[in-house]
Amino acid sequence: MSRRTSVPLRIGNIIVGGGAPISVQSMTNTDTRDIAATVRQIKELEDCGAEIVRLAVPDVEAAEAISGIKRETSLPLIGDIHFDYRLALAALRAGVDGLRLNPGNIRKREQIAMVVTMAREREIPIRVGVNAGSLPANFEAEEPLSRRMVDAALRQVELMEELDFNLIKVALKAFDVPATIEAYEMIADRIPYPLHLGITEAGLPRAGAIRSAIGVGVLLYKGIGDTIRVSLSAHPCEEVVAAYEILKALGLRRSGVTLVSCPSCGRAEIDVLKLAPEVDRYLEKARKPIKVAIMGCVVNGPGEARGADVGIAGGRGKGIIFRKGKVIRTVPKEDLLEALKAEIDSLLERKNEAGW
Amino acid sequence: MSRRTSVPLRIGNIIVGGGAPISVQSMTNTDTRDIAATVRQIKELEDCGAEIVRLAVPDVEAAEAISGIKRETSLPLIGDIHFDYRLALAALRAGVDGLRLNPGNIRKREQIAMVVTMAREREIPIRVGVNAGSLPANFEAEEPLSRRMVDAALRQVELMEELDFNLIKVALKAFDVPATIEAYEMIADRIPYPLHLGITEAGLPRAGAIRSAIGVGVLLYKGIGDTIRVSLSAHPCEEVVAAYEILKALGLRRSGVTLVSCPSCGRAEIDVLKLAPEVDRYLEKARKPIKVAIMGCVVNGPGEARGADVGIAGGRGKGIIFRKGKVIRTVPKEDLLEALKAEIDSLLERKNEAGW
Repeated sequence: MSRRTSVPLRIGNIIVGGGAPISVQSMTNTDTRDIAATVRQIKELEDCGAEIVRLAVPDVEAAEAISGIKRETSLPLIGDIHFDYRLALAALRAGVDGLRLNPGNIRKREQIAMVVTMAREREIPIRVGVNAGSLPANFEAEEPLSRRMVDAALRQVELMEELDFNLIKVALKAFDVPATIEAYEMIADRIPYPLHLGITEAGLPRAGAIRSAIGVGVLLYKGIGDTIRVSLSAHPCEEVVAAYEILKALGLRRSGVTLVSCPSCGRAEIDVLKLAPEVDRYLEKARKPIKVAIMGCVVNGPGEARGADVGIAGGRGKGIIFRKGKVIRTVPKEDLLEALKAEIDSLLERKNEAGW
Repeated sequence: MSRRTSVPLRIGNIIVGGGAPISVQSMTNTDTRDIAATVRQIKELEDCGAEIVRLAVPDVEAAEAISGIKRETSLPLIGDIHFDYRLALAALRAGVDGLRLNPGNIRKREQIAMVVTMAREREIPIRVGVNAGSLPANFEAEEPLSRRMVDAALRQVELMEELDFNLIKVALKAFDVPATIEAYEMIADRIPYPLHLGITEAGLPRAGAIRSAIGVGVLLYKGIGDTIRVSLSAHPCEEVVAAYEILKALGLRRSGVTLVSCPSCGRAEIDVLKLAPEVDRYLEKARKPIKVAIMGCVVNGPGEARGADVGIAGGRGKGIIFRKGKVIRTVPKEDLLEALKAEIDSLLERKNEAGW
């Protein structure tokens, strides 16, 4: 996988693009005007690994709340602006680290110019965030959706460039996965700016994570994308967990535990479906990038789990414990979970001592 | 998306390859010897949409149980064989509709020949099912994993061809997503047979569905793949649901409801995170391919959900109901859920009357 090169941007203390690690974004779903609730959720997001947080700015009160929110939190904050450019100005004054403007509903040149001028002075990047659901009316033509999204983004990008502004990031989101992929592919060669990937309104976690994983995953696999947001109808930390799973699956980030576990079948000698969730819960707080395997039998057990730091597999009447694919001992089945936990503890301890 | 062409196979009443709809497989996790439990699970799998079911055949008793299981079920059954070619013969005699042989642990030419001869007589396809975790020892070289998997598969395929057998399907599964994608891409041009896609030991549903969606999704997006199995440590129906979500996201199958819902944010006027799961549960049994949208506000509400048959969005102090992106009426927020359910019922009724 060779990655598309993009001009790096700084959003607070996070670099987006230019070969920086692909960053994980999410968005609060609290009322932005409720500073306490929003601060609480941003801290939850920080705990679960979000690196950039976006907030809706539906009115002036919300824009002004940002300065209070920023005082009590440390993640970079992006103000999400629709319809009214004055909210963008207010958010900039309140100290946002980035803006998202929807070119479908803020389009007047003089309005964009005012936002861009203030953003340039403060060196605050702006995302041109196109949504299939809010394309400018004049783009409602016979063109395919992907082209209409790209055209809407390019028009806004060109306007910003004319205004001598280039702290630009672009997103082209739709619910339609193939159209989204096409749109990003189309724009990737036409602009030098970082791309923010996402599938919009993807739904509940079960289906939404799958839609997002395909859309974002196909693009990342092609080397396209600098930062991602998984949109799910769920607590925003679910989005962050899903985002890291996508990045881990493609080897683009290492974060926390990777659990290898088989689906179980008529060959299983241990109850994988009971053990795997228990081990997953046990590992929930582990932040070291370790790999743990839970395999029902020995067909693929130690073999498939060769890359796992520690694992278990079912054998005839007993449980097998292995490290990096090597069997290190066998234990009675009923002791397997405790034995695995002890192995995990000792592994994490060794990693701590080794200083990573 | 243009699809790779492959020679079609018949597995029971399902065509795999040759441009047939991409079929959805799963595998029982019951003890195959327990006929009643296995029959019960196969019926559950049929209810949730599985089209082909695989069963582990760890011993002769399991192989012989297949005839009893077949009598009481109607989905095509595939016997999963490891180590002992005689289990393949017993499964064929018991009436399986397909076999899966692991070339990592059944390799002797004369053993393969006996299986292939009986399968040819009965016109039963065989899947050459390579797993990264059980590659033949002589493939443990310095070659990359993808190439070793491909080589293991090709060696088995060539042996079968020499034995004048071509009812072949191939799978090359690993936990490593990029290696799996590479392996399938490599083999796609080298053999004419259908490809069965999957990421093996992908883990619990949350992470496993994402790994599978990327691996299978990237390949399907490239036009590669004829049948899929999502491997999850969960009830096998979870695998089937995930498989259809992957296929639906890429527009390759239509099955049941597609729920479009936004992640909610500080702009939301209705409680999307509460409404979306309720609507999802309400729609659980609906098998018509309808699209329902639940949007927190009007920014992308009717617009993004233009493709939705019916949807709701939050407005100031009220709820909006729309059909195909057109607002049809507004209702008090507290009546929104019931009003949407009524719209869904009437939509399903109209579809029933229209006969699809």
